[in-house]
Amino acid sequence: MSTGSNQELGGKSIIIRLDIDTEKMNFGMVTNAISLTGGDIIAIDTIHIGPNSTTRDITINVKDAEDNRKITEAIERLQGVRLVHVSDRTFLMHLGGKIGIHPKVKIQNRDDLSRVYTPDVARVCMAIHEDEQKAFSLTIRRNTVAVVSDGTAVLGLGDIGPKAAMPVMEGKAMLFKQFADVDAYPICLDTKDTEDIIKIIKAISPSFGGINLEDISSPRCFEIEERLRRELDIPVFHDDQHGTAVVMYAGLINALKIAGKSIRDIKVVVCGVGAAGIACTKILLAAGVKDIIGLDRNGILVKGNEYSNPMKRWFAENTNTAGVSGTLQDAMRGADVFIGLSSSGLLKREDVLTMASKPIVFAMANPTPEILPEEVDDIVAVMATGRSDYPNQINNVLCFPGIFRGALDCRATEINEEMKLAAAEAIASVITEDKLDRLYIIPSVFDHKVVDLIRQRVIEAAIRTKVARRIPKEYR
Amino acid sequence: MSTGSNQELGGKSIIIRLDIDTEKMNFGMVTNAISLTGGDIIAIDTIHIGPNSTTRDITINVKDAEDNRKITEAIERLQGVRLVHVSDRTFLMHLGGKIGIHPKVKIQNRDDLSRVYTPDVARVCMAIHEDEQKAFSLTIRRNTVAVVSDGTAVLGLGDIGPKAAMPVMEGKAMLFKQFADVDAYPICLDTKDTEDIIKIIKAISPSFGGINLEDISSPRCFEIEERLRRELDIPVFHDDQHGTAVVMYAGLINALKIAGKSIRDIKVVVCGVGAAGIACTKILLAAGVKDIIGLDRNGILVKGNEYSNPMKRWFAENTNTAGVSGTLQDAMRGADVFIGLSSSGLLKREDVLTMASKPIVFAMANPTPEILPEEVDDIVAVMATGRSDYPNQINNVLCFPGIFRGALDCRATEINEEMKLAAAEAIASVITEDKLDRLYIIPSVFDHKVVDLIRQRVIEAAIRTKVARRIPKEYR
Repeated sequence: MSTGSNQELGGKSIIIRLDIDTEKMNFGMVTNAISLTGGDIIAIDTIHIGPNSTTRDITINVKDAEDNRKITEAIERLQGVRLVHVSDRTFLMHLGGKIGIHPKVKIQNRDDLSRVYTPDVARVCMAIHEDEQKAFSLTIRRNTVAVVSDGTAVLGLGDIGPKAAMPVMEGKAMLFKQFADVDAYPICLDTKDTEDIIKIIKAISPSFGGINLEDISSPRCFEIEERLRRELDIPVFHDDQHGTAVVMYAGLINALKIAGKSIRDIKVVVCGVGAAGIACTKILLAAGVKDIIGLDRNGILVKGNEYSNPMKRWFAENTNTAGVSGTLQDAMRGADVFIGLSSSGLLKREDVLTMASKPIVFAMANPTPEILPEEVDDIVAVMATGRSDYPNQINNVLCFPGIFRGALDCRATEINEEMKLAAAEAIASVITEDKLDRLYIIPSVFDHKVVDLIRQRVIEAAIRTKVARRIPKEYR
Repeated sequence: MSTGSNQELGGKSIIIRLDIDTEKMNFGMVTNAISLTGGDIIAIDTIHIGPNSTTRDITINVKDAEDNRKITEAIERLQGVRLVHVSDRTFLMHLGGKIGIHPKVKIQNRDDLSRVYTPDVARVCMAIHEDEQKAFSLTIRRNTVAVVSDGTAVLGLGDIGPKAAMPVMEGKAMLFKQFADVDAYPICLDTKDTEDIIKIIKAISPSFGGINLEDISSPRCFEIEERLRRELDIPVFHDDQHGTAVVMYAGLINALKIAGKSIRDIKVVVCGVGAAGIACTKILLAAGVKDIIGLDRNGILVKGNEYSNPMKRWFAENTNTAGVSGTLQDAMRGADVFIGLSSSGLLKREDVLTMASKPIVFAMANPTPEILPEEVDDIVAVMATGRSDYPNQINNVLCFPGIFRGALDCRATEINEEMKLAAAEAIASVITEDKLDRLYIIPSVFDHKVVDLIRQRVIEAAIRTKVARRIPKEYR
C-alpha cells in the first residue's frame, strides 16, 4: 500500500480486496462499516464466491489518505474479514483509463448544433467529398495518430493480448499529447493475422493522419509496416524498430564525439537481430557505417548461410562484408561499438577488454542490460542502457512525439530514412559541446527543446525528400 | 461570408480562395499584400494550376472581423486576383477537427512516467491479462464508444465515402461527450464489404465499451448489426434504426395521450421500410401495437408476395395480419397513426382526411417531410417531423447519449428491446401531464433531464433482463 498523502491520492478512489468469512460476517455489515467512516462506495465487484467465503473488490471514493486510513482500520476491526490488498497509486492512475475525448467547441444552442451536426455539417462533408485533401484541414486527421497494437510483444511481457495491451497504448497516447500536442488514439486489435492487420489498418485510416505501430511481434511487424508504408499515403512508423534506432543513433553521434571517432571508420557489433536490432542496423548503414557484424542466438550472421527468417537473410547479405563467422567473442575483438538488443548478461567484461580503444557499449536489453554499467565503467569511453536508473537512457519517448509532430505539420506521406536521421541529429544536438559528457550523451525526455528541434529537422528533411504535402509557414 | 464579430470568429482562422491570373500577378505579391495587413498566413493549398491562372486556398489567422475586412479589401485592390470565397463559421468550426484527446493526469516527472508507462504499467497490463473484465475498470473501455461508419448513407447525402463522413461522426462524438460524458471516437471505414466491416469492428472492439453504428446503407446495416450483436459482448446499436425508433415511440406515447387512444387499439401505417422504418415497426410491435401496415415504393407489403430484400420479407410476415393490399391511399383509410420515413410530398391532405378521428401524423422524411405541418394542422390531433423549424422534432440526439450512458454504467452486454422501450418511456416522461400539448410532445435536446432519466430507466431494464454485468450503487 503506497497511498501516502492527499496529493498523492488526488481525490480519487481506492480499491480494497476483502476475503469475507460468510459464516462470521455478512457483506451488508462490511459496507455499513465503510459507510460509517464516510467512505463513499462506488463499485463492488465479486471476484470469487465459495461455500463459506467470498472475495470482493470494493471501490471507494476517498478525499485523502486520512479517509483511507480510517477505512482500513474499520475493516481490520471486523471479525471474519481479511483485507487482501489496497490498490496502489499506479492502479489508481489507471482507473477509467488514462485519456479522454473532448469537444473543441461547446454546443451552446440550436445554431451551434446545426453547424457541427446536421444539417449544416453536410456542406463540410461535401467539401471533403469534392476534394479529399480537405480532410487534412477540416477533420481530426490533421493532428491524429492511431497507436495500433495486436498485443503480441508488449513491453517485456510478450503476447498478453489486445485488452491487456491497452494501458501501454493509452500511456503512449498521453505522451503524444503532453510532449507534442498530437492527438493519439489507442487501437488494440483482436487478431494476429498479418493480412487481417494490414487490411484493418488500411480500412480505419480515413480517421487518422498517421499510424504508430506498437508492440507487434517479429517478424510479422516487418511485413505489416512495409506493406502499409507502400499502400497508405500517411506516415506509418513502427516505434519498436525506428524509435529505438533513432534514439540509439542520437546517442551514438554524441558518444563518437567523446571517443573522437568518425562514423565512417567504426566497427559495430549488433547483438540481437529482432525488430529493434534490424532497425538499428538500417539506420547505421544509412548514416554511413561500413563495418557491421550482427549476431542472433546461433552466433554471427554470415552471407551464404541458410536463414528461414527473411530479415536475417537481408541482414547477412547487407552486413559483415569481411565474412567473419563465430561467436560474440569473435565479433567483439577490435570492435568500436557494441549495440545490444538481446538479453541480460550476454556480454562479459573480458569481451569489452578485447574491443578497440575507447569502446562504446550500448547495452539496451530490457529490463536487465547485456552488461551492467558498474562492471565496465572503468574501461569504456561511453556506456548507455535502456534504463532510467543509469545515465544515458536510450528511451523511445525522446523520438516518437517529435517525429510525428513534424510529419503531421508538413502532411508528410511517409517517415523516410532521411527524416529518421534528421530526428536523431536533432536529439543529439540538444546537448551542446560544452555540456557533453560521457555520462550525458542523450537529453532527458522532459527537456522541452527536444520536440521542437526534432520537428524542425524532420520537416526540413521531408521537404528536401519531397514527401511534404504542405510547407509550414516558416519554411516558405 | 458570415464572419461577423470577434466573438463569432473566436480568434480562429479564415480560408480565402483566390483565382490568380498569373500573367498579371505573382503569388508572392498576394501573400505580401496579406502580410502587410497584419494577416498571419498559416497554410497555402494549391487547388488548381492552369496555363495562365492558379487557384489557391490561403488560411490566415485573424484576431477579429476587422482583420478579416482589411484582408479582403487588400485582396480586392490587387489586379488579376479574384476572391472566390471566404469560408464561413461552419467551416471555421471544423478547422482541425472538432474533438481532441487529453490525458486525464499530467506526467509531471519520471515517477509519473514510470507509472503510466513502462515499467510500472506492466503490472496493470498483467492484472487485465489475468482477468479480462478488469479492462472495464482499468482502461478507457469503461466509458468509450466507437462511432463507426462506412460513409455509405451519410445524412441525406448518400454514399460520400469514409473521409467525407468524418465531420458527421466527429459531431456525434461531440454530442456524446457534451450530453452524456461518454468518450466517443469516430472510426470511418474504407470498405463497404459486409464481412470486412464485421471483422474489422470485432477486431478493434478491445479498445471500446460499445459500438454505435452510423450511416451504413440498408440492407447491409441489418446484417452488420445483427452479427455484431451476436458475436460481441458489448452493446452494438445502429442509431439510424433504433435512435429514430426510440424517439419516434417516445413522441407517440405522448401523442396517444393527447388523442386519448391506447397503443393496443391503434392502426399504424409505416411508409418507407428502410433501416429506420423497420426499426420503428419493431419497437411498435414490442410496445404492443397489433395493426401495422407497411409500404415500400411498390405499395403495401403483403405476406406471400416475393421480396428479394429479407427485411421486407420479415416485414410482410410480421405485420398486416388482415392481408390488406394496394396503395398508400388504401392503407391510410381508418388509420390512427402515420409514420413516414420515405420521401417528401408523398402524403396528401386528402389521405389524412380518410384517417380515423384524431389522427397522428409523424412525417419524418429528411430534409422535407411527407407532408408539411401547415397543410394539415387544422385536421390532425398531433403532428411531428424530423425538422428543428417545426414543433415536435423527432431527433436522435435525444436518445443515443443517454442510452449508451446507461449501458456503459451497468456494463450491459447489449442494448435489448426492453432497454429501448425504457429509453422511449423515459424521454416521454420528461414532459409532465401539465406541460403536455399537441405542439409539445417531445422534449428539447437541450433539456438536462433527458439523459439522466434515460440512464436510470435503461439501467433498470438491463438489470431486469439480466444483461447488466455491474449493478451501479443506487440499484444495489
